[in-house]
Amino acid sequence: MSILLKAVELNGQATDIFIEGNTIKRILPSKADNILPANTIIDGHQKAVIPGLINMHTHAAMTLFRGFGDDMPLMSWLQDKIWPNEAKMTDEDVYWGAKLACVEMLRSGTTTFFDMYYHLDATAQAVEEMGLRAVLADACFDHFNPKLTEACKQTIYKQFNRSQSYNRRIQYALGPHAIYTVSGELLRWIADFAKDNNLLVQLHLAETEGEVLQCKERYGTTPVRYLYQLGVLSPLWTAAHALYVDDEEIQILADTGVHVVHNPASNMKLASGHQFMYKEFQRAGVKVAIGTDGCSSSNNLDMIVAMKLASLLNKAWRKDPVVFTCNEALRATTQTAADILSINTGRIEEGYLADLCLIDLNIPAFTPNFNFVSNLVFSANGSCVNTVICDGRIVMSNKIVNGENEIMEKAAQKAYTLTCSAK
Amino acid sequence: MSILLKAVELNGQATDIFIEGNTIKRILPSKADNILPANTIIDGHQKAVIPGLINMHTHAAMTLFRGFGDDMPLMSWLQDKIWPNEAKMTDEDVYWGAKLACVEMLRSGTTTFFDMYYHLDATAQAVEEMGLRAVLADACFDHFNPKLTEACKQTIYKQFNRSQSYNRRIQYALGPHAIYTVSGELLRWIADFAKDNNLLVQLHLAETEGEVLQCKERYGTTPVRYLYQLGVLSPLWTAAHALYVDDEEIQILADTGVHVVHNPASNMKLASGHQFMYKEFQRAGVKVAIGTDGCSSSNNLDMIVAMKLASLLNKAWRKDPVVFTCNEALRATTQTAADILSINTGRIEEGYLADLCLIDLNIPAFTPNFNFVSNLVFSANGSCVNTVICDGRIVMSNKIVNGENEIMEKAAQKAYTLTCSAK
Repeated sequence: MSILLKAVELNGQATDIFIEGNTIKRILPSKADNILPANTIIDGHQKAVIPGLINMHTHAAMTLFRGFGDDMPLMSWLQDKIWPNEAKMTDEDVYWGAKLACVEMLRSGTTTFFDMYYHLDATAQAVEEMGLRAVLADACFDHFNPKLTEACKQTIYKQFNRSQSYNRRIQYALGPHAIYTVSGELLRWIADFAKDNNLLVQLHLAETEGEVLQCKERYGTTPVRYLYQLGVLSPLWTAAHALYVDDEEIQILADTGVHVVHNPASNMKLASGHQFMYKEFQRAGVKVAIGTDGCSSSNNLDMIVAMKLASLLNKAWRKDPVVFTCNEALRATTQTAADILSINTGRIEEGYLADLCLIDLNIPAFTPNFNFVSNLVFSANGSCVNTVICDGRIVMSNKIVNGENEIMEKAAQKAYTLTCSAK
Repeated sequence: MSILLKAVELNGQATDIFIEGNTIKRILPSKADNILPANTIIDGHQKAVIPGLINMHTHAAMTLFRGFGDDMPLMSWLQDKIWPNEAKMTDEDVYWGAKLACVEMLRSGTTTFFDMYYHLDATAQAVEEMGLRAVLADACFDHFNPKLTEACKQTIYKQFNRSQSYNRRIQYALGPHAIYTVSGELLRWIADFAKDNNLLVQLHLAETEGEVLQCKERYGTTPVRYLYQLGVLSPLWTAAHALYVDDEEIQILADTGVHVVHNPASNMKLASGHQFMYKEFQRAGVKVAIGTDGCSSSNNLDMIVAMKLASLLNKAWRKDPVVFTCNEALRATTQTAADILSINTGRIEEGYLADLCLIDLNIPAFTPNFNFVSNLVFSANGSCVNTVICDGRIVMSNKIVNGENEIMEKAAQKAYTLTCSAK
């Protein structure tokens, strides 16, 4: 199978991109007479091409809780709205929630996401069917209960084995929820298991002031230092949020090779904090990627909006209009994220995976088009994405994802039934 | 002429809305058998209705400078990019820039905007043709030069007279740019002229720390106090930005009846500041509306994104997830803005002007739909708007504004020619 993107705009130039199998094979300046034979030819007129975007922190199935409790204090939101309903979720709920998430991600240009949730098989099935890539972190909590610690290890072991049969677009990863829900014993075991099996690890880290306070009380030190002292940190680890870190902790993250995921929408909406230390992470050499977080806090999965928020929020609180440029936001969401995941994507170069989005240029957001990346990040939103290719397959065409109406309907029904809401 | 919106969702209920002339005449629970005769019937299935949104601070024609200099320090951006090119703008440039702005506003649900710019006749013509409502503030600067002060008065006087022939959807207003570009003499004259002719006044106020510093040096006091001492403030006045105000100044604004427009995208991107005193304005009784600012700083005119940013930014910097709720954001952008402008719009009630937007519910942003306003503000963006009615006329249907392709093409050409950019 082959696809030719004919005369699509890349770095301001009309370009032909020839895809064979799941790989970008040739990139050429477009000329009328150099039409390479391909099974499918896509007209790139008035379209620009960007790498498929990478959402580095989300909880896909939480689309079912979109708008279910907003403008609320964090703890009553979690305790009254989210946790009791999450506990009731079945495989089927997670499957439909993840399907809906995949529709939303494709429609806004995301081809790869790093998820942290339960019922991994259900999410994996959704991802396989929808054609995206995913790294699925197996969320675990032992709540400092040794019996649960052992149960978690068993669950991870079994789930890891089951994941061997997942589609090759899907990676299994480990998801110790946070230092306030997972014991040091389990964190150490996870770190070893990750090393032994070359698995990525993602956790929520230093997200709120409350977490730091509790960590100091429990362990006499701050979250990053605590993990460092446990000896678990390595380049396999990705920390979501990392809002409350001092200079020494940033250096620890750099020295141990840990990566950081900034989630501006969630941090703003939950009022977790605004002072993401982007400049300091950059300076120290910590890789920074961007995520949306789950739809219960963000409340969408639009990575174009996430890039916008990351850039705007960092400029605002730093009072520095030059910080976190649009180009840096796009790089964080493509190359940097791909590098963290060690997936050969995030770049439009020969030999890379064919994960690509075509962007409609014929809309006000790109008019005029002095600076495509600025327009993409600051002016546009996910609705500018017209066509998405992932792993060499067309997974969205002319803004339509196959089966999207049925998926939206089913997912909504599941959400209303789950939460006992009359609709 | 009459329009029937049949079975459109309003407050969660299928509702029929009957429009006659430019007015909402009847609002009824929808029943299959109560089809009122109308010239046009619009099927409201899977659509919700909201009031047309009101953008309370923008510079419409600056769409031509979208993405022309981003991620730059404020002064070099203004001096190297914006001012030299603005100075070259002709009536025709402003006309096409404003036409493009109207397309973008309609596509994202804005039916009324408060503009501040030059070449008012050109903008008025664009607004008239595109079918929106606008309040056009006549931007003026005298740079403390008495000759220019007199010239400004003459220009305003002439322009005010010319505005008498504008379409009834367009109001003339006064736009003294800011206290650092307009003399006290001219500000006083404008205040009198506004009172004599019942005209609204908008200025940029307390936008940056630099402005406050300069004001203290020049006048020995802060911006709001300075205007108060000048004796110019009244309910006709609207202050854009108002980021740097203390408690006493907020009280002054409340006592004098001045309204405030929050522009979160612009304030964040230009790094003007994040600490908008929403809670304090509310408590004091100052009306707060929302704007996008011009496309050179915001960089779009999407009021749904502006509502999102207003809510998120205020939650973030206050570290309070309960502040500036989605309902408050929508009210600020509809009822409150309409009240400030004294236009009978911003509400869906019998007797109000028929300025309405139909929202597509059949998209991921509204799935599930536990809370429509939360989904609108936190999850959606301007692309959810399907149909727009302004002044009883359908001005956008199925996401298409009449003539939009030609307008985008012409506006882009004007932008490239104006800035001497090769395209």
